[in-house]
Amino acid sequence: MKKLEDYVVSIPDFPKEGIIFRDVTGVLESPEGFHTAVDAFQEKLQGVDFDLIAGIEARGFFFAAPIAYAMGKGVVAIRKKGKLPRETWEVDYDLEYGTAAIEMHRDAVSEGQKVVLVDDLLATGGSLGAAISLIEKAGGKVVKIITLIELKDLKGRENLRGYDYDSILSYSGE
Amino acid sequence: MKKLEDYVVSIPDFPKEGIIFRDVTGVLESPEGFHTAVDAFQEKLQGVDFDLIAGIEARGFFFAAPIAYAMGKGVVAIRKKGKLPRETWEVDYDLEYGTAAIEMHRDAVSEGQKVVLVDDLLATGGSLGAAISLIEKAGGKVVKIITLIELKDLKGRENLRGYDYDSILSYSGE
Repeated sequence: MKKLEDYVVSIPDFPKEGIIFRDVTGVLESPEGFHTAVDAFQEKLQGVDFDLIAGIEARGFFFAAPIAYAMGKGVVAIRKKGKLPRETWEVDYDLEYGTAAIEMHRDAVSEGQKVVLVDDLLATGGSLGAAISLIEKAGGKVVKIITLIELKDLKGRENLRGYDYDSILSYSGE
Repeated sequence: MKKLEDYVVSIPDFPKEGIIFRDVTGVLESPEGFHTAVDAFQEKLQGVDFDLIAGIEARGFFFAAPIAYAMGKGVVAIRKKGKLPRETWEVDYDLEYGTAAIEMHRDAVSEGQKVVLVDDLLATGGSLGAAISLIEKAGGKVVKIITLIELKDLKGRENLRGYDYDSILSYSGE
C-alpha cells in the first residue's frame, strides 16, 4: 500500500538549482492520498478546541476547506493582497528578494475566536508568521498550526516559536 | 433559519461602478453556510459517474476540495499560469481587457477520465471555458460543471453550450 509520502512529487532544481520542490498536487489528485492527508490533519486536531480554520492561498485552501467541512467549522481565506473585496487587515512579510503582503477580511475572525491555521508546507515560515499576525490583529487566537510538509533545514519552526505547530511529513538533509 | 443566499455578501460597485460583486467568503466563514453549500454541490452530483473534481484557482478550490474529500475522489488544481511545477497544458482566454492563461498538470487527468468541474461563480464563462479545454486536451471528459453562483445576465451558459451545467444560486436583473 502506498504511504502518504509516496504521493509527494519531489522536483529537483525547482524553482532554482539546488532546491528540491515538494509538490503536493500528487497528493491531491489521488483519492487515497488526498483522503489520507485530510484525515491526518484531522487526527492532529483531536481534542483541540477551535472555532475556525484559516487556509493560506492557494494550496492551503485544498486542506483547510475539507477539514472545515468534515469538522463542521467555517473556513477563512488568507489571500494575496488585492483579492478580497471587503475591508481587510494586511501584513507584509519578507521574501528572499523583496516583500509580499497577505490580507484577511476584518470580519472573518472575531475577538476571542480560536483559529487553526493550515498550509501545505512550512519552509522559512514567512507566510505562516504573517498569517498569525493577521489573525491576532483581528483579536483571534491561533491555537494550532499544521502543515502537510515541513522542510526542517529551513528552520521555519523558529518563526513559529510560542505556537503549537505540527507537521504530517518532514524532510531534511537535502 | 438562514438560507444559503443570506451568506452571500453583495458588494455594490466592486470592482467598478455598476457591478454588484457576489462575495462567497461569507458562505465559507459560516459553518452552516459552508456545510449547506458543499452539500448542495454533492446533491447535484448524485447519480453522476465521475473520477475527479477539478477546481479553478482560487475560490474554486474551497468547494472542489471538500466535495472530493467527501465523495472519495481526487482533486485537480487548475491554476493561473506559472504556479504549477511540472509539465502543464496551457489555455488562454479573453478578459475584458487583454487575456489570461490557466494551466493544469499534463498528468493530472488521464485519457478517458470523467471530470466534474467546479467554481464559485459563473460570469461570462471565460475561465470555465478555458478549463474545459484543458481537461479535453488531456483526454478527459467533462461530465458536469457546477458553480455556487450564476450571474444570469452575463449569459455565461452560452459559453458552456453542449455541457451539463448547473448552479446552486442564481442572480439576474441587477
